[in-house]
Amino acid sequence: MSINYPWHWIIEWSTPGTAHMHAVNNVYAYGQSKYQRWAIVDYSDLGKALVIDGKVQSSLLDEFVYHESLVHPAMLLNGNPKKVLILGGGEGATSREVLRFKSIEKVVMVDIDDQVVDVCKKYLPEWHQNSFYDKRVKVVIDDAEHYIDNTDEKYDVIISDLVDPEEAGPAVRLYTREFYMKIVNKLEKNGVFVTQSTSPVLTPTVHAVIYNTIKSVFKYAYSYYVYIRSYEGIWGFVIASNDVNVENVKNFDVDSLINKMVNGKNRYYDNESHAHMFYIPKYIRNILEKEKRISTLKDPIYLPA
Amino acid sequence: MSINYPWHWIIEWSTPGTAHMHAVNNVYAYGQSKYQRWAIVDYSDLGKALVIDGKVQSSLLDEFVYHESLVHPAMLLNGNPKKVLILGGGEGATSREVLRFKSIEKVVMVDIDDQVVDVCKKYLPEWHQNSFYDKRVKVVIDDAEHYIDNTDEKYDVIISDLVDPEEAGPAVRLYTREFYMKIVNKLEKNGVFVTQSTSPVLTPTVHAVIYNTIKSVFKYAYSYYVYIRSYEGIWGFVIASNDVNVENVKNFDVDSLINKMVNGKNRYYDNESHAHMFYIPKYIRNILEKEKRISTLKDPIYLPA
Amino acid sequence: MSINYPWHWIIEWSTPGTAHMHAVNNVYAYGQSKYQRWAIVDYSDLGKALVIDGKVQSSLLDEFVYHESLVHPAMLLNGNPKKVLILGGGEGATSREVLRFKSIEKVVMVDIDDQVVDVCKKYLPEWHQNSFYDKRVKVVIDDAEHYIDNTDEKYDVIISDLVDPEEAGPAVRLYTREFYMKIVNKLEKNGVFVTQSTSPVLTPTVHAVIYNTIKSVFKYAYSYYVYIRSYEGIWGFVIASNDVNVENVKNFDVDSLINKMVNGKNRYYDNESHAHMFYIPKYIRNILEKEKRISTLKDPIYLPA
Amino acid sequence: MSINYPWHWIIEWSTPGTAHMHAVNNVYAYGQSKYQRWAIVDYSDLGKALVIDGKVQSSLLDEFVYHESLVHPAMLLNGNPKKVLILGGGEGATSREVLRFKSIEKVVMVDIDDQVVDVCKKYLPEWHQNSFYDKRVKVVIDDAEHYIDNTDEKYDVIISDLVDPEEAGPAVRLYTREFYMKIVNKLEKNGVFVTQSTSPVLTPTVHAVIYNTIKSVFKYAYSYYVYIRSYEGIWGFVIASNDVNVENVKNFDVDSLINKMVNGKNRYYDNESHAHMFYIPKYIRNILEKEKRISTLKDPIYLPA
Repeated sequence: MSINYPWHWIIEWSTPGTAHMHAVNNVYAYGQSKYQRWAIVDYSDLGKALVIDGKVQSSLLDEFVYHESLVHPAMLLNGNPKKVLILGGGEGATSREVLRFKSIEKVVMVDIDDQVVDVCKKYLPEWHQNSFYDKRVKVVIDDAEHYIDNTDEKYDVIISDLVDPEEAGPAVRLYTREFYMKIVNKLEKNGVFVTQSTSPVLTPTVHAVIYNTIKSVFKYAYSYYVYIRSYEGIWGFVIASNDVNVENVKNFDVDSLINKMVNGKNRYYDNESHAHMFYIPKYIRNILEKEKRISTLKDPIYLPA
Repeated sequence: MSINYPWHWIIEWSTPGTAHMHAVNNVYAYGQSKYQRWAIVDYSDLGKALVIDGKVQSSLLDEFVYHESLVHPAMLLNGNPKKVLILGGGEGATSREVLRFKSIEKVVMVDIDDQVVDVCKKYLPEWHQNSFYDKRVKVVIDDAEHYIDNTDEKYDVIISDLVDPEEAGPAVRLYTREFYMKIVNKLEKNGVFVTQSTSPVLTPTVHAVIYNTIKSVFKYAYSYYVYIRSYEGIWGFVIASNDVNVENVKNFDVDSLINKMVNGKNRYYDNESHAHMFYIPKYIRNILEKEKRISTLKDPIYLPA
Repeated sequence: MSINYPWHWIIEWSTPGTAHMHAVNNVYAYGQSKYQRWAIVDYSDLGKALVIDGKVQSSLLDEFVYHESLVHPAMLLNGNPKKVLILGGGEGATSREVLRFKSIEKVVMVDIDDQVVDVCKKYLPEWHQNSFYDKRVKVVIDDAEHYIDNTDEKYDVIISDLVDPEEAGPAVRLYTREFYMKIVNKLEKNGVFVTQSTSPVLTPTVHAVIYNTIKSVFKYAYSYYVYIRSYEGIWGFVIASNDVNVENVKNFDVDSLINKMVNGKNRYYDNESHAHMFYIPKYIRNILEKEKRISTLKDPIYLPA
Repeated sequence: MSINYPWHWIIEWSTPGTAHMHAVNNVYAYGQSKYQRWAIVDYSDLGKALVIDGKVQSSLLDEFVYHESLVHPAMLLNGNPKKVLILGGGEGATSREVLRFKSIEKVVMVDIDDQVVDVCKKYLPEWHQNSFYDKRVKVVIDDAEHYIDNTDEKYDVIISDLVDPEEAGPAVRLYTREFYMKIVNKLEKNGVFVTQSTSPVLTPTVHAVIYNTIKSVFKYAYSYYVYIRSYEGIWGFVIASNDVNVENVKNFDVDSLINKMVNGKNRYYDNESHAHMFYIPKYIRNILEKEKRISTLKDPIYLPA
């Protein structure tokens, strides 16, 4: 290059008039599966990352923030998780966090895209840390709904680590009321469900509708938030249960619970991070208050919205 | 345009390999002052906004989040603010928030750039809401340090709402230990100082050094954080005092204090938003712990760093 | 800006996957008329420029290349142009070039957008050089077709300097067979018609269809080409007549004709530039050969195509 | 992607304020050699392409335009080329065109980067069409100057198909007067030298200085031009000789010469394309006239300039 600016970029579009540009230093692998175009790249700002259909799924810089935030609150709330079902989670980092819990006996991870799972196994060892090969883990290549429809098993915790509900993508059904009602039936007593729920600031409508939909199905539901640098925005999660009051989560003494239930040390999730996530800034509360819709198969929510 | 994508963009570069793109729908005013290139634009995502040297200063979407976060904690901590000094703050929204406090008798706003102040007066009525014309307000066109050096007055609260310390910009000196030592001398008993302190995630080194520098001058110093959509990241503030223990701020009952001390209703800052801001996620605590440097005239910190 | 890259850009999209980025140094004027969003900006690479709906119309860097290429061949081919009709041409540079011909008695310029014409009068003196105020010039604010339908006058040369036929734009009709048939009726004996015809490399289909359409109406038609830096591509023109064989244009001794017919000196158009424009590289000839369609009101061509 | 815009881009910067964006559909191979970062990608607009350090070297869309323009005029001018030296030319397309000449007995191709040559062999069969494996071809991995200094051979035609003289790149020396004087000594009687010489519109200074430098060494030198879509601009070449008057090239009957000397049919280069290339538009002639400098080892020209 004559001009010494970076020349290789991924532009992540949030809205027609908002985008985040990340320079790429290297491409480790690149392909098109049956479901999505994927890339393992080295970002100049985020380090190694998995990108699917133009969206960074997670990066070495802060995948631990995302994965600890997704997994730990639900596991603590259940209190004694033995069997966990992960929907999506191809990087293997969600199962890595689940396996750190001392009580775990069985983890089933259901991902639709075998090509992406294979690529993650090969190129993302920092993520999965061999969780794919742990004897307690079973990897199933299947559509999440098809798996749910055909299993008799129940789980203590079900974690939805799916791609966003993109208009043309395969995940739209997996954010509807009908799907969440199937989830309920696969939870053990004191079972807890948690899902990523897109960004309350970049895609507020979709986030609020996911939250509403889950609240319409479960007795208790709560949303929480953390800024993820890789997503250049605040990210939302919804945690729900029919048996345990998830409002209780707010008063957790995370540090002692982690100390008791989890092997090794957390890199992000502790008492103060927990409080930060569960005290919700007012501009997000306003978003949730204004939106009344839920997502159904007949009238589903999807991106862009 | 043949292709129906937005064509007019401002690209805000955070690092050589990270940028945020915002589409521009309209340009209300545009110019080059002695100090900076400025624009009042209508962003497709953020609405009306003031941009200085390529950085959005604030937008209609969430200027209230920024300005309430900057002003209110320091005012509450002081408890009875009568005289307030604002450094920068050309939009007039910082003085707007200050004037909402019932105890206010005098506000001095010192901004170096008369052209930008005039433009804000004319084009940003939603920001200033005529605060420029309030009898208690005195607008001084001057360099902040020159003003400090030549005034005999002292203030209950000093608010630094300056542009970031850009390498070639005029604000680098205003983030050094030497400048903060001058600030101390202009504070009344129980005086409180607060400053914006850049982003802990986009420019972590600069943020941490500003925090360290202030801590090296004041007896008590504390940083707090809020995500600002307009900046596409978490934003940092540092609040400090020699007389009042700013750690106390953490336990504020914001809702009753605001109710007692402030006219009108807050749009963002309340008890829960306050907790969110003052519980600091661990990845930010890590940044602060690792950085030991302070900024001095001899060895100042500036962007990019 | 922390990073010293330009931050203000206009991105001109040619296809969904091709774009040209130009940094903006200044905005002189900006607005939205009934028909289009326009801007007078200072580009870092092209200098002052008129931009309409995201497309640079002409820039100080090479507007003379465009305007001499558009005007002079048709005028030379006619040989003694007295009355000229310009469709579009709001910058006033097309009429400037026309007025340089010694034989000119009357110029009518028909532009639909009075706001853009006023802006050009005020901000583009380097373009129009007061051609708007020449006694021989009459500016009519009207739709080109409506004007043609309602005038009894005939012209020696008709110059179409219209915006491209954008899908949603007002110019699509003005590139159809039906419109060109109306043009024919407004030409004097030995009358010549010339039009800009988009880029044969960036929008080859549209260019070829315009060429075919004109050839279907006129006895003689010829296309010629010049690279315009402001458009970052080769630009096409089509010149046509029912009375004079435009193939003759190829053998012009441009230098002597200009010397005889034109006041002042040309900056671009001379013998060698002429040869360059009228010898057509094979990849363009291939494009013209492959495309057989013409544009009609019933089945018009437009961008993107 | 929520928004259906392309997300994977290569941004080719021409100046600090000018860039061309190309969307990437696929990455075939990607790497960093000792000398440069390279990629074989599928562009949405240009098709398969070799990119080196952010610059497209050639694409399937129009590599034939570039390679025929580079090779054929020099070969025709020589009249009976038997031995040809190619400096650079890693794609194998320059040697492909050379081998089409019936008189060819020996081709030496000297490229510094074995990794890039290997990648082109594997991924660019449409370019090289097995020219690497032709018995008449010898591929030497070496610095061009080192090779020239150490060979006793002379050539009928020497073709410089090197990367641009980038400031920090390895090619700056290979565009200096000193290097061209070495070239002269390696030419047979009636020998002809030709080189790509960057863009006269995107990098006018560098182009003009290369032209001047060559003219200062050779008795006869001539520049010619063709628009290359892949480079989004006009591209320059300089052809030179001490024995044959390259001005003669202007009057070539290309069609008969090609017919006589070359196997197969040309896709681009014919009589009319030739005329287009050798009649130079005035804005380029102006650039050449204004620039007087030459490039020397002591004071070399390089990009950006």
